[in-house]
Amino acid sequence: MTETHSFLEEPADTREIIMKATYHALCEHGYADLTIQRIGDHFEKSKSLLYHHYDSKDELLLDFLEFMLEHYKANIPRTDYDDAHAHLQALLDHVFPDELEAERRKFMAAMVELRAQAAHDDAYREHFTRSDSFFHDRIAEIVRMGIKEGVFRDIDPDRTAALLVTTITGAMTRRTTADGDVAIPAVRRELQQYIESQLLTEVSQ
Amino acid sequence: MTETHSFLEEPADTREIIMKATYHALCEHGYADLTIQRIGDHFEKSKSLLYHHYDSKDELLLDFLEFMLEHYKANIPRTDYDDAHAHLQALLDHVFPDELEAERRKFMAAMVELRAQAAHDDAYREHFTRSDSFFHDRIAEIVRMGIKEGVFRDIDPDRTAALLVTTITGAMTRRTTADGDVAIPAVRRELQQYIESQLLTEVSQ
Repeated sequence: MTETHSFLEEPADTREIIMKATYHALCEHGYADLTIQRIGDHFEKSKSLLYHHYDSKDELLLDFLEFMLEHYKANIPRTDYDDAHAHLQALLDHVFPDELEAERRKFMAAMVELRAQAAHDDAYREHFTRSDSFFHDRIAEIVRMGIKEGVFRDIDPDRTAALLVTTITGAMTRRTTADGDVAIPAVRRELQQYIESQLLTEVSQ
Repeated sequence: MTETHSFLEEPADTREIIMKATYHALCEHGYADLTIQRIGDHFEKSKSLLYHHYDSKDELLLDFLEFMLEHYKANIPRTDYDDAHAHLQALLDHVFPDELEAERRKFMAAMVELRAQAAHDDAYREHFTRSDSFFHDRIAEIVRMGIKEGVFRDIDPDRTAALLVTTITGAMTRRTTADGDVAIPAVRRELQQYIESQLLTEVSQ
């Protein structure tokens, strides 16, 4: 969920150059209008290289989704916070900004379209199952850490994670498929109150 | 969100017969593989009637979405509950069943695909903005009623509605695009606790 895109600034190898082109083509065209040809338009090397590596648009996009997930796994900060409460707040501030930058909105819209492919495509479904599982585990880990630190009560980390991943998924969908931005600050405030009343120990409030 | 499908049992007119055929074709094929021809396969009258009424698959599907929204507006029960708390519980029990029936899952998957069209199609976006707004207002109305009845505290109904509509949207997406069913009972329990600690007055607990 946290976006840190070093590969967009300085792609390290051919795969990262392909991923960068795919990212920009997705932001520009979305899923439905995307073709390998259009990804090639953002590619700094010979387009034939793309066709050499990938048989279809979906094969390339599934590799892109995998790349992004690995990228999140490697780049989401885990230790730069005073405590688990500050960590959770930073995560929610990042995923529920009041306003979205234009490029982030376009990328989010493309991700919502890619996710919808999973409704009838098992390869996409398998990816998003692993992706949800990763973000779930990461949030549950923060909650577990907070319990250990004494800032959170002895609650069930998996229940909190299930609610937050589901709400974050819904917010991405509402923002990109409806005029749902208006609802986001209210959602963020309500989650804030949920954290204060359900998660935080008396001591830490 | 509540499904009551009288038009599937006894379609009242030609439009309802078309809507019934669209419903079944969506459940069978999903959005991506749908064609007017395939909707026609579920149609009890001459297929030419479909082409007479609709120029494209999307025109028909947008009319279908409008029809379903009107249907929800007319059929969601508003008064069959002891109080607003019972009403809200019934709504959440309906939208967060532990298990989904096969047909409802297929229809939900198709709705998630239709919603993703709104990422790049303004007509779909306009529909889902109105649809979100309807469900938001309906939930806010229940909360407002609960405050009046004294079962809910004097909270902000729009904040509660924003959180619930967003979480319901996310649950639909997770169920149909990943193995997200496993998370749903936990989400339901966490929302239950949210209602008990944030909404209910001391008296009603």
